[in-house]
Amino acid sequence: MKPPRVLVFDVFGTVVDWYGSIAREVATAIPSVDAGAFALAWREGYRPAMQRVMSGELPWMTIDELHLLILRDVLARFGVGGLTEDEIVELNRAWHRLAPWDDTLEGMRRLKQRYMLCSLSNGNIGLLADMAKHAGLPWDCILSAEIFGKYKPHPDVYYGAARVFAVAPEEVLMVAAHQDDLAAARACGLQTAYVERPLEFGPEREKDVRDNGLNTWHVRDFIRLAEVLDA
Amino acid sequence: MKPPRVLVFDVFGTVVDWYGSIAREVATAIPSVDAGAFALAWREGYRPAMQRVMSGELPWMTIDELHLLILRDVLARFGVGGLTEDEIVELNRAWHRLAPWDDTLEGMRRLKQRYMLCSLSNGNIGLLADMAKHAGLPWDCILSAEIFGKYKPHPDVYYGAARVFAVAPEEVLMVAAHQDDLAAARACGLQTAYVERPLEFGPEREKDVRDNGLNTWHVRDFIRLAEVLDA
Repeated sequence: MKPPRVLVFDVFGTVVDWYGSIAREVATAIPSVDAGAFALAWREGYRPAMQRVMSGELPWMTIDELHLLILRDVLARFGVGGLTEDEIVELNRAWHRLAPWDDTLEGMRRLKQRYMLCSLSNGNIGLLADMAKHAGLPWDCILSAEIFGKYKPHPDVYYGAARVFAVAPEEVLMVAAHQDDLAAARACGLQTAYVERPLEFGPEREKDVRDNGLNTWHVRDFIRLAEVLDA
Repeated sequence: MKPPRVLVFDVFGTVVDWYGSIAREVATAIPSVDAGAFALAWREGYRPAMQRVMSGELPWMTIDELHLLILRDVLARFGVGGLTEDEIVELNRAWHRLAPWDDTLEGMRRLKQRYMLCSLSNGNIGLLADMAKHAGLPWDCILSAEIFGKYKPHPDVYYGAARVFAVAPEEVLMVAAHQDDLAAARACGLQTAYVERPLEFGPEREKDVRDNGLNTWHVRDFIRLAEVLDA
């Protein structure tokens, strides 16, 4: 296997800890609810909402717009009233302020010395740029489903990343903490690296992080990824 | 005038010195030609080539593809034979290696402390990402005509930058060394800053860098831009 020329990263859960960050902001904004359960419910609405876009039931909407749609629904289901429209919109921006995992910044700094580092997220460009500035993520380039007009796991997104850099799919390495994302990337010919993020869904929900033997690399965290990639 | 929230930059000539960089690479690759004249001829082919795309005569092509098209034509006009296909493709990548002006990096570092810094160039994403990595340009986000499917000065590009960040056009400041780019940005409601780059076309071709009184700011360089924007 030749070394990759471009590394593309899933972001939510892989680079940043959405559960912990969202739960913290929810706990502050709405002290009356179970913040962890609220964070999980918000995130669970994400995939069905994207599928409504990809099926054509909804027009193209950014993740910011989908997050807001889901938030209104989750607020109703949790019986939360009394937030102003401004407060709801501000809470929705919590996704722009997600915190990196402990190893993220050091791992990225090392990998950046040797490789082109890009996001490849369903998050919209503005969200990803705000998050990078807030968290100090040293991207070389922000790539988003918004650029390709399709959400992962649509092949256009993975092929699109290779096309942007005029490289073959096998010269791109997709890094993610989600096997379905990596399976779709593999089907397009990309190299893949699975990163264990056992606490992605919080301390109370177990995540299966075992090696399924299908990826180019299976690593504990970004430091280990830098090591196996000689960065 | 409210302070802007996002700064978007023209790149070729504004952030980097295409004339000097291209002339240096041409002088090395093809010692027999007048490298400055060759650089000017290559750049002069750029606008007509983009217009052929925008008129529909050519399908969407990236700037890398257009640069290659023009390069073949310029090589023929300068009577240069004997380059291999690999050498031609490598010379075309000189546009990925353009050097910043002396004030660029310090100015950007200061501006980045306070503002979101994005490219807004007709250059394709891969070219701009390679250039940023090579030159150390600290973009928060790379925006390109490639994302919007139109070349500047089409309004979709300027409005697109505002839409990406969900801000009003007047909250975006376009920075450029070209009055036509700024006029188009102004027509979309953006704030504008003209940056003098008197040597854009080399030491032998004069450039009119006088203040036309139409822009929000008129500055000598990026250091002065940081000063007037309190960064």
